Amino acid sequence: MGGKDQLPSWNDGAAKTAILEFVERTSEVPVEERVAVFDADGTLWCEQPLPVEADFILRRLAELAGTDPKLRDRQPWKAAYEHDKKWFGKVITEHYAGNDTDAKTLLGGVAAAFAGIGVEDFVAKSDAFLRSARHPTLGRAYLDVAYTPMVELLAYLEENGFTNHMVSGSGADFMRPITQEMFGIPLDRVIGSSTVLEYASGGRLTRKAKLGFLDDGPQKPIEIWSRIGRRPLLAGGNSNGDLPMLEFARSDRPSLRLLVLHDDAGREFAYTSGAEKALAEADKSGWMVVSMKDDFATVFGER
Amino acid sequence: MGGKDQLPSWNDGAAKTAILEFVERTSEVPVEERVAVFDADGTLWCEQPLPVEADFILRRLAELAGTDPKLRDRQPWKAAYEHDKKWFGKVITEHYAGNDTDAKTLLGGVAAAFAGIGVEDFVAKSDAFLRSARHPTLGRAYLDVAYTPMVELLAYLEENGFTNHMVSGSGADFMRPITQEMFGIPLDRVIGSSTVLEYASGGRLTRKAKLGFLDDGPQKPIEIWSRIGRRPLLAGGNSNGDLPMLEFARSDRPSLRLLVLHDDAGREFAYTSGAEKALAEADKSGWMVVSMKDDFATVFGER
Repeated sequence: MGGKDQLPSWNDGAAKTAILEFVERTSEVPVEERVAVFDADGTLWCEQPLPVEADFILRRLAELAGTDPKLRDRQPWKAAYEHDKKWFGKVITEHYAGNDTDAKTLLGGVAAAFAGIGVEDFVAKSDAFLRSARHPTLGRAYLDVAYTPMVELLAYLEENGFTNHMVSGSGADFMRPITQEMFGIPLDRVIGSSTVLEYASGGRLTRKAKLGFLDDGPQKPIEIWSRIGRRPLLAGGNSNGDLPMLEFARSDRPSLRLLVLHDDAGREFAYTSGAEKALAEADKSGWMVVSMKDDFATVFGER
Repeated sequence: MGGKDQLPSWNDGAAKTAILEFVERTSEVPVEERVAVFDADGTLWCEQPLPVEADFILRRLAELAGTDPKLRDRQPWKAAYEHDKKWFGKVITEHYAGNDTDAKTLLGGVAAAFAGIGVEDFVAKSDAFLRSARHPTLGRAYLDVAYTPMVELLAYLEENGFTNHMVSGSGADFMRPITQEMFGIPLDRVIGSSTVLEYASGGRLTRKAKLGFLDDGPQKPIEIWSRIGRRPLLAGGNSNGDLPMLEFARSDRPSLRLLVLHDDAGREFAYTSGAEKALAEADKSGWMVVSMKDDFATVFGER
């Protein structure tokens, strides 16, 4: 394993060593079986103070409430219009604690926010947002909040015959405009939450005001199997919602289960809320915990 | 376009010329946009006298009715146990005519037939069947009922930068054991009808007795978009259920819409039942109709 350091943004340590050894061991595995899956929010890029898609939707909901006063008394339009970030934070916290009541309200609003819009038009809106909006506190564009070491890991895996898939709780069509550019993951390897689509004779495909499925928790292994038809060798996540996906990795081949620990308040954020169960399982089962503070030599790249 | 004939199993004619010209025109299209989608049953391999998956399920239902007499009075177990192929034929005919009542009964039986089975075990059962069972009338193994010219077309497209996807009404996990070997289509590019899956803590994933979605008609473009995130340049089918998928092909790029016409009773089968609307649309819109009799120099390969 001498020669050029292929993970220069990783500090030497147990995590880096485990990755290098894992990839070494998979050199005997048939290439088509070298499947890696990664959660997005909090694993490949920032999810604090709110997931990027939440910011996108917040702006859209505020825009809708701005033109329709009746919406200003109803969640989630009310919170968006009043810039009530605490309500959105509460939804996330409750979700990770297993209570999805407010998450459903939010996701209902999400689906309704773009109801009737053609799929290409939705992607264009997401594309425009992702290429212009900035992270609220980090002083960076959203295009620059990917974790450099994770992007390096994706490239390193691909060089070693892996196909990388994103398995995100965010919507697939929301992420797709930037996954190739930011993560080297092509559109057809982006798995995410879905909105029910409606096909109209003649070829038009539009979004309905209805959530299809929330790609989180047990839905992640279900979607991985349905889409890829294989269990992954490597699964990476950062929260309780990723636990089933990590469990789902193969046990009859070299495998790696990786949890990103947010312990770097100086360079990113420090939180374990919503990750308690996953961290306990990692501790119990010997899964690899990546400390952003200790294992990441750099967090964000320069552009 | 001189040199080696890359489609030797195609007779010279309008269809072959249209394919060669289409591929030539797409050389300017970015490689990642070169997406082709193909129906399976009746487009890439035989679907008469019954789709291959129907034979698989028939045997399983008969096996279940053999061990549980109560099932012998209920469809679809009754028809399977009595080898009542007419009932299954009726389901298909009604389905193509837009009546899915019996199709739902059948698919309910299908889902129940493998309920509680782990996804890997189901794939193993399908694999064993597809590698051993023979077509009931053609004197060939199922592994040998792919249409050679279509397999050639898939390879020709791939050589020219296309990614080929199967978009089948049959189940994805049923098809997956043989799609790479027979069609050069990897597991993660197989889209098909789905069964609801259940994830159990610890990593086990099993099939429930419930159909997820039937990947036919308008569901095909919906799945194509959800899975691939792009409209295809080329869409190939053979029946009314493929019509929305063909309509869905891009109109702002070179595109090709292809319908396989079963008009060769001598070498395969002759039928237009279930394809009337698609053929009428092809006639109206100038879609390419491939005559098996006239355009296919050979239908099936030698092994």
